[in-house]
Amino acid sequence: MNATTVPVTTTALPASRKVHTSGVLHPDIKVPMRAITLHPSAREPDVFVYDSSGPYTDPRVNISIEQGLPRIRERWIRARNDVESSSSVKFPTRHAPLRAKAGAAVTQLAYARAGIITPEMEFVAIRENVGRSRAVPANGRDGNSWGANVPEYVTPEFVRSEIAAGRAIIPANINHPESEPMIIGRNFLVKINANIGNSAVTSSMAEEVDKMVWAIRWGADTVMDLSTGRNIHNIREWILRNAPVPIGTVPIYQALEKVDGVAEALTWEIFRDTLIEQAEQGVDYFTIHAGVRLQYIPLTANRVTGIVSRGGSIMAKWCLAHHKESFLYEHFEEICDICRAYDVSFSLGDGLRPGSIADANDAAQFAELRTLGELTKIAWSRDCQVMIEGPGHVPMHKIKENMDEQLKHCSEAPFYTLGPLTTDIAPGYDHITSAIGAAMIGWFGTAMLCYVTPKEHLGLPNRDDVKTGVITYKIAAHAADLAKGHPGARDRDDAISRARFDFRWEDQFNLSLDPDTACAFHDETMPREAHKLAHFCSMCGPKFCSMRISHEVQAAARESGMNEMALKFRERGEIYIDPAQPEASAS
Amino acid sequence: MNATTVPVTTTALPASRKVHTSGVLHPDIKVPMRAITLHPSAREPDVFVYDSSGPYTDPRVNISIEQGLPRIRERWIRARNDVESSSSVKFPTRHAPLRAKAGAAVTQLAYARAGIITPEMEFVAIRENVGRSRAVPANGRDGNSWGANVPEYVTPEFVRSEIAAGRAIIPANINHPESEPMIIGRNFLVKINANIGNSAVTSSMAEEVDKMVWAIRWGADTVMDLSTGRNIHNIREWILRNAPVPIGTVPIYQALEKVDGVAEALTWEIFRDTLIEQAEQGVDYFTIHAGVRLQYIPLTANRVTGIVSRGGSIMAKWCLAHHKESFLYEHFEEICDICRAYDVSFSLGDGLRPGSIADANDAAQFAELRTLGELTKIAWSRDCQVMIEGPGHVPMHKIKENMDEQLKHCSEAPFYTLGPLTTDIAPGYDHITSAIGAAMIGWFGTAMLCYVTPKEHLGLPNRDDVKTGVITYKIAAHAADLAKGHPGARDRDDAISRARFDFRWEDQFNLSLDPDTACAFHDETMPREAHKLAHFCSMCGPKFCSMRISHEVQAAARESGMNEMALKFRERGEIYIDPAQPEASAS
Repeated sequence: MNATTVPVTTTALPASRKVHTSGVLHPDIKVPMRAITLHPSAREPDVFVYDSSGPYTDPRVNISIEQGLPRIRERWIRARNDVESSSSVKFPTRHAPLRAKAGAAVTQLAYARAGIITPEMEFVAIRENVGRSRAVPANGRDGNSWGANVPEYVTPEFVRSEIAAGRAIIPANINHPESEPMIIGRNFLVKINANIGNSAVTSSMAEEVDKMVWAIRWGADTVMDLSTGRNIHNIREWILRNAPVPIGTVPIYQALEKVDGVAEALTWEIFRDTLIEQAEQGVDYFTIHAGVRLQYIPLTANRVTGIVSRGGSIMAKWCLAHHKESFLYEHFEEICDICRAYDVSFSLGDGLRPGSIADANDAAQFAELRTLGELTKIAWSRDCQVMIEGPGHVPMHKIKENMDEQLKHCSEAPFYTLGPLTTDIAPGYDHITSAIGAAMIGWFGTAMLCYVTPKEHLGLPNRDDVKTGVITYKIAAHAADLAKGHPGARDRDDAISRARFDFRWEDQFNLSLDPDTACAFHDETMPREAHKLAHFCSMCGPKFCSMRISHEVQAAARESGMNEMALKFRERGEIYIDPAQPEASAS
Repeated sequence: MNATTVPVTTTALPASRKVHTSGVLHPDIKVPMRAITLHPSAREPDVFVYDSSGPYTDPRVNISIEQGLPRIRERWIRARNDVESSSSVKFPTRHAPLRAKAGAAVTQLAYARAGIITPEMEFVAIRENVGRSRAVPANGRDGNSWGANVPEYVTPEFVRSEIAAGRAIIPANINHPESEPMIIGRNFLVKINANIGNSAVTSSMAEEVDKMVWAIRWGADTVMDLSTGRNIHNIREWILRNAPVPIGTVPIYQALEKVDGVAEALTWEIFRDTLIEQAEQGVDYFTIHAGVRLQYIPLTANRVTGIVSRGGSIMAKWCLAHHKESFLYEHFEEICDICRAYDVSFSLGDGLRPGSIADANDAAQFAELRTLGELTKIAWSRDCQVMIEGPGHVPMHKIKENMDEQLKHCSEAPFYTLGPLTTDIAPGYDHITSAIGAAMIGWFGTAMLCYVTPKEHLGLPNRDDVKTGVITYKIAAHAADLAKGHPGARDRDDAISRARFDFRWEDQFNLSLDPDTACAFHDETMPREAHKLAHFCSMCGPKFCSMRISHEVQAAARESGMNEMALKFRERGEIYIDPAQPEASAS
């Protein structure tokens, strides 16, 4: 049911239902998964997949955008007894914001270091294990993890230890209790982020809330609200209260609005107040471009595309205008103290990322990366969770170097990259130019991939673009999980391939990342219901269907007997390979 | 002008004109290229790009599908004085088919071995050099070619030597003189193929001709006609007479039509006659699944998706039904003799390629690959040009092994792969799942990438799907060229990036792989003409445009003087990095 005046897409995905698993350490946590039911003829159990879509895809839940989502983490947060209501409530809101009691660190990193397994940690452990217990014996391990330490099975203790080591983060602001915890780290499933947000030129609150719900329906693990127009605070409030996924922002955008877009007029005080305002609202991670130092700016002077990060260019302009070091860099410890009091994770921005193939892996980019590594250690020293943003535009042969440099200089803090785009020549298709790079860098160790939509470089993504971007990045992330040898990742591939080979068309659609499109494409040429049972498709027609013939081949081979064939070959002195019936070769 | 009753898309691409370069050894050859003119404010010369689109994009040419294209190679072929008119003309046609004089080998490989540089060879040398002479000094070499020997500049002699070594092919049937020669080899630009063709279920001759013209408009280097329905011969005739690119087929499809779809009823004689029929029509390369040997078939019995190649499954069925070795394998020398008399190149089919992640790199696939290597040597011994087809469905971590095994077992004959798809879970988006694999295997050394459209696994591609598939594969091929460090490849990236940074919107569109889509996407949110000059776009709006700010940063840096800044830093004992003005640091 959808009782709201803001229209968002609810309903379950085809043949899917939401199921929940409870915790053991924390019996009251309910971890959502999606069960896809196959056709009875498959004689296979339901396929369980990771589900980021929140209550929106649960038909039992009554969605009201005006009410916001249930605040599932509120009890967990309050039970820790280390937060208090904030006195600085500036805006009318139903829920007084929380902040840490004086001196307390309320971050997942602080708890992890203290040896505490929080409900958030057990929640993500259960979530990461979808398909694992079944998969390991069936498929074994097959992959190259490039040094990642992906466990057979994720225990809550493993989650705790990875967070304590800084190798993973759970972005979970104490003021965003509506969020279903998720983890970002090299030794976990590769995640994806979808950017939404209006600009001065276009779009409204209702559109952005709808895009957020739409993005998570198709698999976005986090959503960044990059709004830059008027009304930023209010749009963000609507998004946060209705978001079951972590929400990230780039606070400098709102700070710049407060000084009417004049970068030089920015001050530390305005920025600091903006951070607190957003932390109180519940933003789960902040992109902070504190690595754009004054001395690096001249390194961009001869670039083909200069500085392409908005935040980076704003800070560069401020630094040059004042001939001063960045206030983000100089006040970084104070920023940490704010993040620590709300558990806002850092996403250390790569303000000098390359915006073209020509500028990839240049001195500016790598100089900033080393500074991000330095800032990571400061953040960690203050119990703050950190991930590092990465490029951008990078040709294939320079992608691995990015990952290696990041691991080296940032002490294995999770990497979070935008693509990278592997060529500049295809505006309108940059979801694809970047999916190539995203899949590769995900394989090499990037923990989260920021999507790129077909509108990149050309305009703001609409609803269709958001879906295309999310599906494309789910492909990249899953391809990376497969190549890393993630236990259980291949389950879904195998299930869909069996459905394909068995001509279970509906199962093939339902198991796919986008059942609606798969079904619609099939129906374009073979629309009738009967064709859903056809043992061929319009690609080849009945006579040329390799899968149909292949079934006949397998049947014929079994009927005529491999034994007989094997014998015949042996008589002729040829090797007859028959791994299907190994006992036959002994007869 | 388009005076035909079969509607195909003519007209030039935006801001583009067709230019031709003449040969030196063969002054009468005219090699087409596309010149893209930039806005005067760019103060840059035209950008030249490889052009596979034939006369259709030349407004000076009067296109008539009923007449067919000019037979540009006819003089070259006749001048060699080694062909004669064939007596076996079975169908009314305006041009009597040619074949080699008795005993003569009319293949490019035979000429190359004899030390002859044909017009075809000089043609492709000129074609491959687009952008090279300018590029090398400007950008230098930057890439990892994985052992490929990509020269600074392609000479006709280099082309000859690569063909003589079997490392490259020019598919150029003597009965397809309409074709503009192109080369397929690891040391040349990565090429792409588009599949078209009707099936028993759908589509007509006019649709297929239109798809062929449409595919090459967007960059397909070769086109395979995979028609399987009635009327195969006639559709192929229309396609060939109007195709400026090499046309490939899978002759077993037509042979199977001749026996009413009953695989067991196929005979060597029917197949042989089909080869001759198609060779006389002018088909440039044949996919022959001669590596599907009887003894390998049981290796597929336990696969998740069995045999997914149509040709492979047909031959497997034949072998099992007769309990005999494949007639393609047994008559391979005779097939070579036919190919030798018309210069039909082999595309040795991978009938046992994996159709799912589960089946990748398995015993069946690699057993067949070794047989393809054996057949390559036989074909070479008879002066036939050869390339090797490859998978299919392969997770990222198993892609390199495919390339390495192919190079090893097939003696560096060009590799021609379908994708590979890096996951099975995204029907409807398999252009993307496969572009990831295609870009990677192209980088590793695959010479030609067979496109996959969004309709893969679901239906026959329509016009839109063909375009999406071609553009997607141009991206993959170009990303591979960049990563290999192909001289000149980065020219186009740099030109479009400069246009982007300078807010030359029209140039950005015109330089892109798909100007129509780029422009349409931009206009969705900023439709007015004035916005084409805007120094921002709807993504960020004017205040947040990083590129605009970056220009201000660069201007400010130059105005305030790097000198002054450098001095200031030096006074404070900090390193001030200023590669932009190296002389400044000495001042």
